[in-house]
Amino acid sequence: MVEARLRVIYGDTDQMGVVYHANYFRYFEFSRMEFFRVRGGSYRELERDGFMLPVVEATCQYKAPARYDDLLLIRPRVSELRRASIVFTYEVAREDAPSTLLCTGRTLHACVGRDGRPKRLPDAFVRLIEQSP
Amino acid sequence: MVEARLRVIYGDTDQMGVVYHANYFRYFEFSRMEFFRVRGGSYRELERDGFMLPVVEATCQYKAPARYDDLLLIRPRVSELRRASIVFTYEVAREDAPSTLLCTGRTLHACVGRDGRPKRLPDAFVRLIEQSP
Amino acid sequence: MVEARLRVIYGDTDQMGVVYHANYFRYFEFSRMEFFRVRGGSYRELERDGFMLPVVEATCQYKAPARYDDLLLIRPRVSELRRASIVFTYEVAREDAPSTLLCTGRTLHACVGRDGRPKRLPDAFVRLIEQSP
Amino acid sequence: MVEARLRVIYGDTDQMGVVYHANYFRYFEFSRMEFFRVRGGSYRELERDGFMLPVVEATCQYKAPARYDDLLLIRPRVSELRRASIVFTYEVAREDAPSTLLCTGRTLHACVGRDGRPKRLPDAFVRLIEQSP
Repeated sequence: MVEARLRVIYGDTDQMGVVYHANYFRYFEFSRMEFFRVRGGSYRELERDGFMLPVVEATCQYKAPARYDDLLLIRPRVSELRRASIVFTYEVAREDAPSTLLCTGRTLHACVGRDGRPKRLPDAFVRLIEQSP
Repeated sequence: MVEARLRVIYGDTDQMGVVYHANYFRYFEFSRMEFFRVRGGSYRELERDGFMLPVVEATCQYKAPARYDDLLLIRPRVSELRRASIVFTYEVAREDAPSTLLCTGRTLHACVGRDGRPKRLPDAFVRLIEQSP
Repeated sequence: MVEARLRVIYGDTDQMGVVYHANYFRYFEFSRMEFFRVRGGSYRELERDGFMLPVVEATCQYKAPARYDDLLLIRPRVSELRRASIVFTYEVAREDAPSTLLCTGRTLHACVGRDGRPKRLPDAFVRLIEQSP
Repeated sequence: MVEARLRVIYGDTDQMGVVYHANYFRYFEFSRMEFFRVRGGSYRELERDGFMLPVVEATCQYKAPARYDDLLLIRPRVSELRRASIVFTYEVAREDAPSTLLCTGRTLHACVGRDGRPKRLPDAFVRLIEQSP
């Protein structure tokens, strides 16, 4: 399992004293980068090869707030893998309370080429995702 | 119907040349502010009275990209209004193609007091929402 | 004089209850867009013609905080115009206290071509800037 | 010397394919957090004790672009320490080219109390800063 670690900065909080809800989608993206990196790949390479994975749908359920200076663990998982799309789910927790979920999320990505049209996920990429961890 | 208008800045785009997906949640928030304002209220006043509407769940479906310099219309609507929660839905389009949806979204908000506990939405606020437009 | 108007959203504030300092640079950019638009041009067109104006230096002096829901006036001015660079200065104030400066800023931009090399500002663009207002 | 490490996400880039200039001020803030942490303190604790260090002036010189997926090193230093103010300077480089500066920055912070008035920096904090590294 991949656990991306990220420290909450002042600029991520809002005047309620908690992380502004939109910023979790940035955290999710960060964890996807780490997910690929841990497996020896990178999204940057995928793009170089002419594949892009734009977000088609994004959801987040907020359960408890994260705050300034919190060290967050973001755990991304691939929950669905189809010919030309991929679904990630996420769990976010604080490092000092890793089993208490602050939020959960989900992003659906299409695989498209440089022309924006659907494109089958490359085999090397699929293998990279299917390997454990 | 409320239509919040917003110009896409460079800082909202990403290297794919389109608005970064997380930023739409900021646009949704902006449109909620305008929604209250058009009705003669404001979220700031609600907070002053001790009520907060934190986002409990947020979703966005991305259909077509928005780009730098686009003038966006964001149309917020209240689709559900309960004792201590409220659901907004959103449509985003470009001003020069107002019937082509770029994305749709939904945010569920709890109504809580300063102590973070659920609190019944104040009557004046409910009236403000129920009035047309 | 151009006055760009912008409403402070929750997502722009931080836990001190004020606009996070980095966000003013986004506000400055927004006001530059409006500056060109008011004059009948647009930065987007400039880019289409192969010119870019990347920020080479940016400064902001913070005098008083802006807060959630404030309607801000951002006043951009061109303070220097050279062959291949341009300097903007900015004043930010609240609409209900337009003579009380919340902050002032300055951005220096190089004019470069698609290859990243310095390029003389196009004449049409210079005329657009020199015209009043 | 403190070196904060940070991976550039998609959300930090703009359509020019580089990190949007305003985001470096977020990176600077992140490096200040790490600066305090490395010394065994934290800005959060300082706030708990009733001291705040709002940014009074911020500057950044951009020399070369950072890009998506770059691993950045941000090196913060205290260049001035007065009774009720502190100046940080910053250097940003890529990890794989640590001596090539992408940008340099500077932030001046006032030390104020909860009432917003200038307040002498606490002795423990000054000792924390003066210690090496």
